[in-house]
Amino acid sequence: MDLDFTKLDGLVPAVIQDAASGEVLMLGFMNAEAYAATRTSGQVTFFSRSRNKLWRKGEQSGHVLRVREILVDCDVDSLVIKVDAAGPGVCHEGYRSCFFREITPTGEFKVTAERVFDPGSVYRKG
Amino acid sequence: MDLDFTKLDGLVPAVIQDAASGEVLMLGFMNAEAYAATRTSGQVTFFSRSRNKLWRKGEQSGHVLRVREILVDCDVDSLVIKVDAAGPGVCHEGYRSCFFREITPTGEFKVTAERVFDPGSVYRKG
Repeated sequence: MDLDFTKLDGLVPAVIQDAASGEVLMLGFMNAEAYAATRTSGQVTFFSRSRNKLWRKGEQSGHVLRVREILVDCDVDSLVIKVDAAGPGVCHEGYRSCFFREITPTGEFKVTAERVFDPGSVYRKG
Repeated sequence: MDLDFTKLDGLVPAVIQDAASGEVLMLGFMNAEAYAATRTSGQVTFFSRSRNKLWRKGEQSGHVLRVREILVDCDVDSLVIKVDAAGPGVCHEGYRSCFFREITPTGEFKVTAERVFDPGSVYRKG
């Protein structure tokens, strides 16, 4: 059986979950090539929609995501990938998870996590 | 600040996570209207891409998803919604989670969860 890449023009969403804590760390998209690269390398590789190319998570920061388990949903159009995350956090803003803000009942975005690294020292500009 | 619905033609992916166990139960998509309905009703409401209309999860099965917390990512284009799930499971195939299969190293889809209800008695056909 194959994944269904047709619903989002060649992409499937991949939920990245910390294998140990269960925390959702980020959500990215994979095309067939990124999915194959993830499986063969054992490191999460996305398709970057903004840069239109494969993007191995951590290739710049060193914060790679090692695949522990890949789960697929009933419609074979979404993935959950349980990972061991190298480094203190996955978010380019310096947080453990990209989901570091809660939406309050009044619709405000409120930071609820602690910043765990300085993004300026990890990510080069430009 | 608003969500960015522009990247997927008016939709954002929403990861549904069990508030108690941390298990990822399903992934759905919301347009602005579904997001507003989710927030005002306190029950997860998706936009169904196949039926092209709002879809309150559980409207047929009774297995509604009560919102406990909504998290938003750094790019404001993805949500994690922590929920209390009414009923034994969210998957129309009778499992607790839609992610009931693991992809093995050889690429096979292997069921790793127990079926917890009979979908035939919960979901009407047609």
